[in-house]
Amino acid sequence: MQFLVIGGDAAGMSAASRAKRNAPDLQVTVLEKTEDVSYSACGMPYNVADPDRDMDELVVRRAEVFRDKQGIDLRTGHTAETIDRENRRVSGHSRTGEPFSVAYDALLIATGAAAILPEVPGADCDGVMALKDLADGRRIKNYLTEHPVTRAVIIGMGYIGLEMAEALHERGIAVTMAKPRPQLLPWMEPDLAAVVRQEMDDHQVRLETGFHLEKIEPAGNRLALVGPKGVLEAEMVLSAIGVRPNSAMAAAAGLELGPHGELAVDRQLRTSDPDIYAAGDCADAYDLVTGNKTWKPLALRANRAGRAVGDNVCGKNVALPGISGTSVFKVVGLEVARTGLNETEAATAGFKPAKIVMKSRSRAHGHPGNTTIHVQMVGDTASGRLLGVQMVGREGVAHRINAPATALCAEMSVERFAQSDLAYAPPFSPVWDPLLTAANLLLKKL
Amino acid sequence: MQFLVIGGDAAGMSAASRAKRNAPDLQVTVLEKTEDVSYSACGMPYNVADPDRDMDELVVRRAEVFRDKQGIDLRTGHTAETIDRENRRVSGHSRTGEPFSVAYDALLIATGAAAILPEVPGADCDGVMALKDLADGRRIKNYLTEHPVTRAVIIGMGYIGLEMAEALHERGIAVTMAKPRPQLLPWMEPDLAAVVRQEMDDHQVRLETGFHLEKIEPAGNRLALVGPKGVLEAEMVLSAIGVRPNSAMAAAAGLELGPHGELAVDRQLRTSDPDIYAAGDCADAYDLVTGNKTWKPLALRANRAGRAVGDNVCGKNVALPGISGTSVFKVVGLEVARTGLNETEAATAGFKPAKIVMKSRSRAHGHPGNTTIHVQMVGDTASGRLLGVQMVGREGVAHRINAPATALCAEMSVERFAQSDLAYAPPFSPVWDPLLTAANLLLKKL
Repeated sequence: MQFLVIGGDAAGMSAASRAKRNAPDLQVTVLEKTEDVSYSACGMPYNVADPDRDMDELVVRRAEVFRDKQGIDLRTGHTAETIDRENRRVSGHSRTGEPFSVAYDALLIATGAAAILPEVPGADCDGVMALKDLADGRRIKNYLTEHPVTRAVIIGMGYIGLEMAEALHERGIAVTMAKPRPQLLPWMEPDLAAVVRQEMDDHQVRLETGFHLEKIEPAGNRLALVGPKGVLEAEMVLSAIGVRPNSAMAAAAGLELGPHGELAVDRQLRTSDPDIYAAGDCADAYDLVTGNKTWKPLALRANRAGRAVGDNVCGKNVALPGISGTSVFKVVGLEVARTGLNETEAATAGFKPAKIVMKSRSRAHGHPGNTTIHVQMVGDTASGRLLGVQMVGREGVAHRINAPATALCAEMSVERFAQSDLAYAPPFSPVWDPLLTAANLLLKKL
Repeated sequence: MQFLVIGGDAAGMSAASRAKRNAPDLQVTVLEKTEDVSYSACGMPYNVADPDRDMDELVVRRAEVFRDKQGIDLRTGHTAETIDRENRRVSGHSRTGEPFSVAYDALLIATGAAAILPEVPGADCDGVMALKDLADGRRIKNYLTEHPVTRAVIIGMGYIGLEMAEALHERGIAVTMAKPRPQLLPWMEPDLAAVVRQEMDDHQVRLETGFHLEKIEPAGNRLALVGPKGVLEAEMVLSAIGVRPNSAMAAAAGLELGPHGELAVDRQLRTSDPDIYAAGDCADAYDLVTGNKTWKPLALRANRAGRAVGDNVCGKNVALPGISGTSVFKVVGLEVARTGLNETEAATAGFKPAKIVMKSRSRAHGHPGNTTIHVQMVGDTASGRLLGVQMVGREGVAHRINAPATALCAEMSVERFAQSDLAYAPPFSPVWDPLLTAANLLLKKL
């Protein structure tokens, strides 16, 4: 039996490795268009921050290891172009221009997502870049080495934009973040987003909300970002306005897509063709809280889905319950985390949400180094269920979010979550953990 | 209606405050033998570590606030001595020697626990101390100010002993910890306990296991701790061999006690007399995992039980599901945490436990500052349930334990817990959180 994987990143290599471990005799072939497989993409901003670190430190496992030690037929520099579902073949071209065609019994599409570039004149200027794959990371780092960059503009204010703002700031570059919409992190509770905004202000990162980019044009040795209300100048422009699924080949093969162009898969990761799986940033998932389909390109769920495909092609029947969209990021001195739904998302999904927004402390009363933790918590007044949590603080946020993330996976009520026996010691929390105080407050509204 | 509380610490003041908030017209009286109410007892080792901090910084709310702002009849310096259940009265003496007698409709016994001192000759020598209440904290701190302490012996190796070892070490005192049994933390997985032991070694804290104390005697301006195999000398001796419930008065009144002398209470915190509640270190609780009674004197559950009594005396019907014994402590550069059962405890409770012990990393591959996290996880082969987790590491342990603590409260299976959508960002964890890697490994044994 031949298991063919298109795309050798998180989901693809997880599936290939898992399948080969399950069934050493299985023929496993991976087609990867670049030379990079298995690297920590999320680590790139931190690598960019440090000119002395090699981008290749982020490589977790080299292609040779997959080939020589794991027996995976890993073909880098191979771009898949068409899927022939009737004859179960995938065709394309190698980097040298040679055509190839590979048969499959089971196919995994793990083509990931691509960074969106602004659709304006000049978006293809030298110095306008995005950060998605390792080649992007090398390109940005080389650009910073080869050009005297003193100012950068980041288009977009999502977490990759924020992480890159911090990275460039650390390299002594004056950073401006620009976006058309009025809010820094629109999914975030305004009081909490204001804390993040203040942190950016305190570190001289300029935020230009309401900036509608019309064109990019050279201006001396800089680039000028022109909008109706003004011009931003910089030697470097980073586009961080999101990603879109790489699903054109799958669409051309007639596979069912979701509303963002992502491949629609069931809990076993099967597409509308039962011999074809999809996993990672190109595929959707079930939302643990709403039960609806959702598309959230995040690393853990890509790895987990790939692993499940590696089980399922070997005859196991692994069904993934879904994701709660847990995410965390660092912004200079802040930890920012969320899991589950905010109030608007909850109402849209048909819940009757109630929420609380409160402040607590990161350590016990009187303990040195105590700082504020901001917590937002959403519950359902109809069922009493916990629906989501957001937190911002200088410490104790990143791992603390895992408690409500677990509660969402267990479909806990706020009342039951409020009874969790959470850890207490003075350097780490108040006696009543901020999450318990929040849950007790929220209970009054349910 | 008169709600009477004996003991003005965590459980007692939580109950009094909550009851008064629920029912402002309720007559609430608290009898407290000391002058201290509402303070962060767990913060004392950290306060001892810093000679410049006042022990009274740990006071959260002063007696006057309870009296003047909350309308609680708080009588400090009042020692309760007898409970007359037939006539519903509590009698005792005030500090000035005056007798008192107070009637009750509902009574809460929140008398806490007392530090155990070694039962050997010389245990009453000047310089032999324990750390339980704020007066103990002040006594230790004064002793360190007034005496040239260069060496200290801590009897016992529990977490209070370890926290005090760190505190005294920070003050430049050479610390030896001594106990009769062979293990540092007997409840802990040996591989993890070895990490803690190494940390103590690295910081010149000497551990004398197998030391059977026979007597303490003055030796010049020091104290000599004499055992069959040798003598330890120090200017100060701290007894940290545990606490016992203060339940003699309750026992004399005929209330039912558990095996450690703790008051037996139901989920509503009622003792064997339905008009008498007990909460905090003097009372037992249900174990969330086993469903059996357990006695674990920890701060959160004392506060939570007190709060529930404050609800129940006002006619609410709050039943506490129980505790999982979650605890965390800091030992120099290590965070140590546990929740639920270890393998032995699980087997004793009738489970068929399987466990894994593994190492993971605190940050993503290639991220600077990455350190080891040691994880032990126990599950039930019969039911698939998660039973307990222990962790040790330099970062990311204290709050991470809250995820399995929540899972225990939700009675999750290991399989379901392994599907939790935990947070990932390179500064905070690998893509697969150490807990997920542990759960995936444990699943293979279930």
